[in-house]
Amino acid sequence: MIQLTAVGTVESPLTDRGSAPRQGDEGAPEAVIVLDQAVLPALDGVAPGDAILVLTWFHLARRDVLRVHPRGDVARPEQGVFSTRSPDRPNPIGLHRVEVVSIEGGRLGVRNLEAVDGTPVIDVKPVIGSDPNER
Amino acid sequence: MIQLTAVGTVESPLTDRGSAPRQGDEGAPEAVIVLDQAVLPALDGVAPGDAILVLTWFHLARRDVLRVHPRGDVARPEQGVFSTRSPDRPNPIGLHRVEVVSIEGGRLGVRNLEAVDGTPVIDVKPVIGSDPNER
Repeated sequence: MIQLTAVGTVESPLTDRGSAPRQGDEGAPEAVIVLDQAVLPALDGVAPGDAILVLTWFHLARRDVLRVHPRGDVARPEQGVFSTRSPDRPNPIGLHRVEVVSIEGGRLGVRNLEAVDGTPVIDVKPVIGSDPNER
Repeated sequence: MIQLTAVGTVESPLTDRGSAPRQGDEGAPEAVIVLDQAVLPALDGVAPGDAILVLTWFHLARRDVLRVHPRGDVARPEQGVFSTRSPDRPNPIGLHRVEVVSIEGGRLGVRNLEAVDGTPVIDVKPVIGSDPNER
């Protein structure tokens, strides 16, 4: 068994899965990542304007789902979740490419984060390369 | 507390962190991801030739490290781990972009995986976009 610890939480106007866009560049509002004070030294080197990868824990997801209709479209045949970005999967980790718009202490304002309010944040990584679509 | 479950394990000729390249395209040998039988339905839709993202759990990493010299180079000033790809971080999740070269049952042969033998695999996701450097 592997134990994760949240390093922060998402503050967002999105409050339920139904209203969240499926990808961050499909209309996600600005959100704030509130990092725990204990991990603030880990943020040194991240600056406004940076593109970063945010890993979240989709706490509302189902972990017993192995096959889904892509994007919830029942007209499309089911696929294995490992070939989709469905939040429902054995370990519901979200991978989001976002743009940092502001940093005030442990509050990171970000653009294009398609996660609902209260979603635990588990890691932040720099983008390597320049793929605009890496979510 | 969030509990992760490994969905598979890395089989690799790399056996210690010292011999592992820092990024997958810096000389990683071919490796095999051995998925648990229970999650095989999740693999439907993944095929040889695909680029996929593999999330691993760096089980040898230190979780109490918040600042590091980038790439272990002491000549470079320390930065927060959230601005680096250091395996040492509060939640040591590895993000690897690899190419699938073969699939036999639950055994995925992959190219460019810089993880040591025995590393737990926690998720597999499709690449969205075409960034060659997303690791």
